[in-house]
Amino acid sequence: MPTVLARFNINPGKEAEAEAAIKAQAASVEAGEPGALTYIFLRGRDNPAEVIVFEIYKDKDAFAELGATAHMGAFRSYFGSIFDPASVKIERLEQIAGVNRGS
Amino acid sequence: MPTVLARFNINPGKEAEAEAAIKAQAASVEAGEPGALTYIFLRGRDNPAEVIVFEIYKDKDAFAELGATAHMGAFRSYFGSIFDPASVKIERLEQIAGVNRGS
Repeated sequence: MPTVLARFNINPGKEAEAEAAIKAQAASVEAGEPGALTYIFLRGRDNPAEVIVFEIYKDKDAFAELGATAHMGAFRSYFGSIFDPASVKIERLEQIAGVNRGS
Repeated sequence: MPTVLARFNINPGKEAEAEAAIKAQAASVEAGEPGALTYIFLRGRDNPAEVIVFEIYKDKDAFAELGATAHMGAFRSYFGSIFDPASVKIERLEQIAGVNRGS
């Protein structure tokens, strides 16, 4: 299953806009992309400006489908105004073993 | 929900032992810790020696419970022989928003 770990920073002073954008994106994915099995926005304790996203897709089609949605386009458009595009780090991961019961 | 992102490296030449240890740990958590909602071992494409673990627990008790199990003790004992203890990085994360349907 395509699995992604992404990180990026919120621009200084844009915390409220960032939270609104993240919640809207999460709600759209939950409602519209059943193939996005896991799509969680997180933040670390050490660096509150950093956003981490952990994503698992049912298959390649589900991964491609999300990238083409209007809400993903809207979220991408915030890189610059709300999120720092220079900070983006994306890792493609392979699962070795484990369990995901949902949460 | 307590959420953790951990990373550590496999010692050179210990890839087979590492895979066996990871699969045994994953199976024990799946069978014995229902409060470990998500417990996935992953590897990145760029650094095959690095293991990443993404963990979500139902609550603090579930998190503490796993730490006290015999299989967690066994897994910890491999730091040194199979995994590099100096490479361990653990991040405690807070969820902002998202969906986890299980996988």
